[in-house]
Amino acid sequence: MKLYDFALAPNPRRVRMYLAEKGLEVPSVQVNLRQGEHFKDEFRAENPALIVPALVLDDGTLLTETMAICRYFEALHPAPPLFGTTAREQAVIEMWNRRAELEGFLAVAEVLRNSLERFKDRALPGPRNHAQIPALVERGRLRVHDFFDTLDQHLANSACVAGDAFSVADITAFVTVEFAGWVEEKPREDHRHLLRWHAQIASRPSAQA
Amino acid sequence: MKLYDFALAPNPRRVRMYLAEKGLEVPSVQVNLRQGEHFKDEFRAENPALIVPALVLDDGTLLTETMAICRYFEALHPAPPLFGTTAREQAVIEMWNRRAELEGFLAVAEVLRNSLERFKDRALPGPRNHAQIPALVERGRLRVHDFFDTLDQHLANSACVAGDAFSVADITAFVTVEFAGWVEEKPREDHRHLLRWHAQIASRPSAQA
Repeated sequence: MKLYDFALAPNPRRVRMYLAEKGLEVPSVQVNLRQGEHFKDEFRAENPALIVPALVLDDGTLLTETMAICRYFEALHPAPPLFGTTAREQAVIEMWNRRAELEGFLAVAEVLRNSLERFKDRALPGPRNHAQIPALVERGRLRVHDFFDTLDQHLANSACVAGDAFSVADITAFVTVEFAGWVEEKPREDHRHLLRWHAQIASRPSAQA
Repeated sequence: MKLYDFALAPNPRRVRMYLAEKGLEVPSVQVNLRQGEHFKDEFRAENPALIVPALVLDDGTLLTETMAICRYFEALHPAPPLFGTTAREQAVIEMWNRRAELEGFLAVAEVLRNSLERFKDRALPGPRNHAQIPALVERGRLRVHDFFDTLDQHLANSACVAGDAFSVADITAFVTVEFAGWVEEKPREDHRHLLRWHAQIASRPSAQA
């Protein structure tokens, strides 16, 4: 088994945080995206989607997609449960994890990839180049703040993002807030529920993974 | 339990197709998005995200997100398994379901919502209005065709989208191909693996749900 990782990228961080919460260690290889190592032939041959994280199983199966990788380990190592146990828990975690991805994480990525010079012609990940679309930057910033508002209101009545217990939804939301810092977007001071929760997650050892 | 549905929208169709495959019937209410029924106060009070599908459980829990709703039913009714059984199956299904959503479904939605007059100022779902961004239309069409290429190549060696067995990844990919027809994008004639698979899924009774 081999995990393609990059220490500075947010999606691999979600996998590392997940593995740390589970107490799992997986052999990994760094793919330096900033130096374009994902475009090299060797990596391209193994992973035509050119993305990290990616997990290659011993039978050769390639798993891309952060949550697919986490679910693989969850099925093999169910304790502690990070995707929930009851039907309701599983569904609520899935919902909040997706909301954090779609309303938060993707909005931050839109700001970043459509504004930074180093993402010129790389406004989307994957094998095809795409030009930046400046209108997505302003829209993305609005969306990030809407997501912070949503999360703050929600956390007024919830210890963690998907209920009382820590889950992958906390990992995604936490990494999203950290990722937003890359484009200089932060929760406001009056987002006190969000800030309380953020400090709590930041104090977990897995936040250093 | 109550499912908010709209017969003409693609995400609710994924839920209906899932339920049909499981042989489940759930009491549902139509929310006519074309007539703006999702903006009415009554719906807004119950579902501030203003989206369908949405499932309200008997304890009042609101589940939005298509896959969260499906996972709720999967946990209660595991047979036949539509999210896989082994760790590898579960992970491969999660990966392909997400690829179909992110590379296919969202690209079609980008084309549709940024080009049709009726989505003026509604380029994204949710409570906030967003202006259309015309540059997303052309990019979205390219992405839809890249997704068709990816799927065709993949289906050359796979009976279904995530292996030999039918799964939610087939539902998402099938509804995505159907949805692409709304913006007049279709697989090419030489996408013969994709067309073979599409005909096979279209012949399932659930495709009429």
